[in-house]
Amino acid sequence: MSARNGRLAIVGLGPGDPAYLCERARPALAAVEVVIAYAPYCDRVAALLPGIPVEPWPIGAEAERAADAAARARAGASVAVVSSGDPGVYGMAGLCLEALYELGWDGRDDPEVEIVPGVTAALAAASRLGAPLAVDFACLSLSDLLVPWELIERRLEAIGAGDLAVALYNPRSRARPHALDRAVTVLRAHRDPATPAALVHDACRPGERVEICELGCLRAEEASMDTLVVIGCSSTRRLGRHLVTLRPRRRREEAS
Amino acid sequence: MSARNGRLAIVGLGPGDPAYLCERARPALAAVEVVIAYAPYCDRVAALLPGIPVEPWPIGAEAERAADAAARARAGASVAVVSSGDPGVYGMAGLCLEALYELGWDGRDDPEVEIVPGVTAALAAASRLGAPLAVDFACLSLSDLLVPWELIERRLEAIGAGDLAVALYNPRSRARPHALDRAVTVLRAHRDPATPAALVHDACRPGERVEICELGCLRAEEASMDTLVVIGCSSTRRLGRHLVTLRPRRRREEAS
Repeated sequence: MSARNGRLAIVGLGPGDPAYLCERARPALAAVEVVIAYAPYCDRVAALLPGIPVEPWPIGAEAERAADAAARARAGASVAVVSSGDPGVYGMAGLCLEALYELGWDGRDDPEVEIVPGVTAALAAASRLGAPLAVDFACLSLSDLLVPWELIERRLEAIGAGDLAVALYNPRSRARPHALDRAVTVLRAHRDPATPAALVHDACRPGERVEICELGCLRAEEASMDTLVVIGCSSTRRLGRHLVTLRPRRRREEAS
Repeated sequence: MSARNGRLAIVGLGPGDPAYLCERARPALAAVEVVIAYAPYCDRVAALLPGIPVEPWPIGAEAERAADAAARARAGASVAVVSSGDPGVYGMAGLCLEALYELGWDGRDDPEVEIVPGVTAALAAASRLGAPLAVDFACLSLSDLLVPWELIERRLEAIGAGDLAVALYNPRSRARPHALDRAVTVLRAHRDPATPAALVHDACRPGERVEICELGCLRAEEASMDTLVVIGCSSTRRLGRHLVTLRPRRRREEAS
């Protein structure tokens, strides 16, 4: 007898303030028996849905959290896993799908899986700055925990060569105090030191703080894991308190 | 006498289904006197907020739409401009800020400006595919209307060289039937033809349709302006009906 049809919802919480949550997130969470969350996010979930059971998990146990959720959903339980921002960008969606496939799930049978997208930190920070990611851009994490630094640097070189605006996630931690300095050095080889840049701390969360600067004098020591760093490309301009990346043909028209 | 304090809200509508709207969007729109919208989005706004006045504008008049909204807000009116997806990604936020600054606004005085971020097409499509943008990625538009093709191709080369997963916006139109073919050719010089790829038509909208394929047999002629194309990097894997990009160190552990 298999009366229970498992369900696994992988839900983006957005940047923090519930104002930037997708409307789908609340009903998707409300439809499950339990929410599995990295411990500091439990309060956010409880504030969204008072009374819903939330299981706190420690940091560093992402794969274990995904495996546990997958196993329970595969066995017929109805569970949700949450990610800050978008679960598909440096989040839990990939880990949960991998865990399900390791259990023999083929994407068609139970559990039913739903991924609820969210506003990732790059978009949240950009909305505070103006429109620095208005044209083409890249998102890059400077954490070398699961990606070797050589590949991160190769990607920075490519972003420099391609004149792409970039949003840098995880720019600096106590264990990696020089990651952002090294990234700035790579980009400086390709970009004018006057290129507009910004550090956005706690974007769309309490304590939000925006610092606009130039690439040449970006103060890397101000960044933390709660900072999203945006570095413009050659068509990014500073307009007072805002950064805007122009489409190159508009810029050329202006110059002519 | 200046009793009126202008307001300009630049609001992301997300991919289409109101389920993927930010909760902030509705009250931000409800607080204005009129919503300025590209004509096909008027119905979406009316469905969200029955009775709110919506002004339809033709396509191709983006800069004029921004200038009009800026002038009215600067004169004390309370207006909103909407963008599909996120207004800061190929949307109206930059144009509106430029227009305000051209009117002498310094970012501090009236009007009050608010940018409401949204789920951009890349995140919407990725949520339907699994997690193809789970690690580092780029967003690139293949429209050469305002960006010269040489720069688009230089960016494609960089994305190839940097082994970045990529979300391609505006992949193909009647006026540019070969843009996606040309992009695939550039990426094929850097990437295995077996690299997982996908065409997501109308992501998170009525009529949504997902086609997963390999880069080597991507059917460019299936794409339209309503398609978001995702091309994985070397650590992207296909798991049944899903695409997931792994963090390279995990992949190495698996191989060892």
